[in-house]
Amino acid sequence: MPGYAVGVSPAAEGNPGAVTGIAKMKLDALYSELTVQTGAKLVMLVLDGLGDVATPDQGGITPLEAAATPNLDRLAKESALGRVIPVAPGITPGSGPGHLALFGYDPLEYQVGRGVIEALGLGVELQAGDVCARANFATLDDKGVVLDRRAGRIPTEVCERLCARLQQQIQHLEDTRVIIRPGKEHRFVVVFRGPGLEGPLTDADPNREGLPIPKALPRDPDNPRQQKMARLIELFYRAALPLLADAKPANGFLMRGIAHQPYIPSFEERYRLRAAALAVYPMYKGLAQLVGMTKLEGPRNVREQFERYLDEHDRFDFFFIHHKATDKAGEDGNFEAKKAAIEDVDAALPILLQKKPDVLVITGDHSTPCVVRGHSWHPQPVLLHSRYSGTDRRVRFTEAEANGGSLGVFEARFLIRLMQAHARMLDKFGA
Amino acid sequence: MPGYAVGVSPAAEGNPGAVTGIAKMKLDALYSELTVQTGAKLVMLVLDGLGDVATPDQGGITPLEAAATPNLDRLAKESALGRVIPVAPGITPGSGPGHLALFGYDPLEYQVGRGVIEALGLGVELQAGDVCARANFATLDDKGVVLDRRAGRIPTEVCERLCARLQQQIQHLEDTRVIIRPGKEHRFVVVFRGPGLEGPLTDADPNREGLPIPKALPRDPDNPRQQKMARLIELFYRAALPLLADAKPANGFLMRGIAHQPYIPSFEERYRLRAAALAVYPMYKGLAQLVGMTKLEGPRNVREQFERYLDEHDRFDFFFIHHKATDKAGEDGNFEAKKAAIEDVDAALPILLQKKPDVLVITGDHSTPCVVRGHSWHPQPVLLHSRYSGTDRRVRFTEAEANGGSLGVFEARFLIRLMQAHARMLDKFGA
Repeated sequence: MPGYAVGVSPAAEGNPGAVTGIAKMKLDALYSELTVQTGAKLVMLVLDGLGDVATPDQGGITPLEAAATPNLDRLAKESALGRVIPVAPGITPGSGPGHLALFGYDPLEYQVGRGVIEALGLGVELQAGDVCARANFATLDDKGVVLDRRAGRIPTEVCERLCARLQQQIQHLEDTRVIIRPGKEHRFVVVFRGPGLEGPLTDADPNREGLPIPKALPRDPDNPRQQKMARLIELFYRAALPLLADAKPANGFLMRGIAHQPYIPSFEERYRLRAAALAVYPMYKGLAQLVGMTKLEGPRNVREQFERYLDEHDRFDFFFIHHKATDKAGEDGNFEAKKAAIEDVDAALPILLQKKPDVLVITGDHSTPCVVRGHSWHPQPVLLHSRYSGTDRRVRFTEAEANGGSLGVFEARFLIRLMQAHARMLDKFGA
Repeated sequence: MPGYAVGVSPAAEGNPGAVTGIAKMKLDALYSELTVQTGAKLVMLVLDGLGDVATPDQGGITPLEAAATPNLDRLAKESALGRVIPVAPGITPGSGPGHLALFGYDPLEYQVGRGVIEALGLGVELQAGDVCARANFATLDDKGVVLDRRAGRIPTEVCERLCARLQQQIQHLEDTRVIIRPGKEHRFVVVFRGPGLEGPLTDADPNREGLPIPKALPRDPDNPRQQKMARLIELFYRAALPLLADAKPANGFLMRGIAHQPYIPSFEERYRLRAAALAVYPMYKGLAQLVGMTKLEGPRNVREQFERYLDEHDRFDFFFIHHKATDKAGEDGNFEAKKAAIEDVDAALPILLQKKPDVLVITGDHSTPCVVRGHSWHPQPVLLHSRYSGTDRRVRFTEAEANGGSLGVFEARFLIRLMQAHARMLDKFGA
């Protein structure tokens, strides 16, 4: 049977053997081969950081359990439920891996550099091949030794002013366009857009005070595109440092996570779905754009996102709708705010359901438990509703209810395939 | 980002899907890169052969369900539960693969020969590079043809007397030390300790009566270390057979599973945890020692093991505590004894909980259902308690309750990673 792992070949030993032992590329190829267009409408509603844990620290209950969610409850009663492992057991993902996995891309295979994520977060419209670096203003002494890696955390206004000064003077280096975008406090990003560029480079950051700024070097010394990129970083330093000479404590800067926007096969090609993103925050729009989704600008909250979905319903097959407030509340350890963020979505849900999609998934990109005050590894709950989902006889959409669902505990990157199946987009395999 | 999967390497694609579909080597590298030390205390309590099945043969109930376990019940109410697949669906593991998987080593990648397991079980202190063979006394006719592969199952005392005789006469062969250790009835082990030795060899065992003893040959004919080992086995036969000439029915012997102690990366390096083993039986001490855990000698039962944990609490970060009686009872098909073995652990549990570890896991290395009277493939139940486990709202620690837990059904080799996550030892992956 060509195409399958039969027996144990030493090369195939990178081989867990969980529930299926089929080579992943082959599985991807199989999914592609089986995929057909049906015109079905699919919606993936992501409540960022949705999952939580019922610990004594937070009253032995989760925000989903505490929230009044009549609409989600009704939906849960007629849906399939389960839990989603964002990346792998115990791994806590950042937003990049969390969303790529939801979009069906193996987050270990498709890694997005921190510079790229930072640029997306600041709303830079990235193009294929752009190389991004996250940068910090820093304080240097006369000899170029780093005295403060964060330049005393200068106010955001100062950062904005200095970035404008740099951008005004540095528009191009050789054949390459330079885009400088300020962030919060001492943070900014630099994007290099030109032919023949590639990362990753080593950091131009000593990672501690008392040392000079090291040169950014190609990770692969023989790669001419990385060599060119390293030269451009050096030229950027030569041009920029003199412009900051009078700007102490921000008279220098460090550059990290220098990498190009990776090649990611487009969502539409991969799943035969015209996809749109309805996100409020730039980073999530950017992540959706990385896989080729169309960003729909405008909506400022979940109601407006759902209303826009109604408007755009006929133009797209797949809608990624992103709600940020759940994650933010979890990061703050604010149980009441997380509960309220869930209730906001529940209250707006009837708008979305006016044009009930053929397949509706509600989940998170990871858990952000209040007790953790940050992203976590706990599998997020998932609800899948379609004409074919049936009911798992669970009465609410909560973590504990989801544990007993028919979807089990599975990896995020398979969620989109389950959605395709429920949209009848996957043909039978074999006779 | 060295150590990461950037792009697609075809060799690593031998990659399944379900619980984790990620290339194992890359995932291992990722786990390593994310691992930080936190000083947390982790305890893995293994009730050997814990899982069971509720069949009519045993009254439609499992020993865990039948046992009075107030302490486990209390713990279950504030823990995450699930089921653990020892190796892969349907695979029944021996103690070696069962424990290596619990220690986080892929049991397909790290295989330990039967000679090594047997030597560990008899308490031989193995050293790196030792080659071990399990041996049987056997009956030979005048021409060396095997008449009885088990020498009529001679009494253990005879086996001990004959082993002592062999050991007295055969201390060394060339530059290699020979260690002979008797087992039960006709069984013994021979350990070869010397420079440049390696297994595996083919068996010096015709595997049925009526044939002479074949030579043990290198599995890889071009490997000089295996060639040397094959020569030593031949020398051993030449020296030993004359010493048994008068010992009919034990006038010969067969040697099998001739292999060296494999290289296994140390537990401490891999997980950044100083680890101790509290086991009563030699084999489990030996398996722990194979991965570099410190054996703590002395305790003779679970109470003493828990008390010793209290004493040693500050010296180690990770404790592997092994309880044998559950497996033994299952092997005997003795439901009441298995139930009692569980109740013994439950009654002693408050001792352990005097210094409640940051992460406590209770599970088995596999199931040993009474109806099977041996190891089985059924996933064992697992309970994980930490500040971040939350409650799955299950009320007891039983197989059926564990089915509804948030941990789902997952492979044993990920359990240690989940423990690390709950100890906050794994950094966030990606931005």
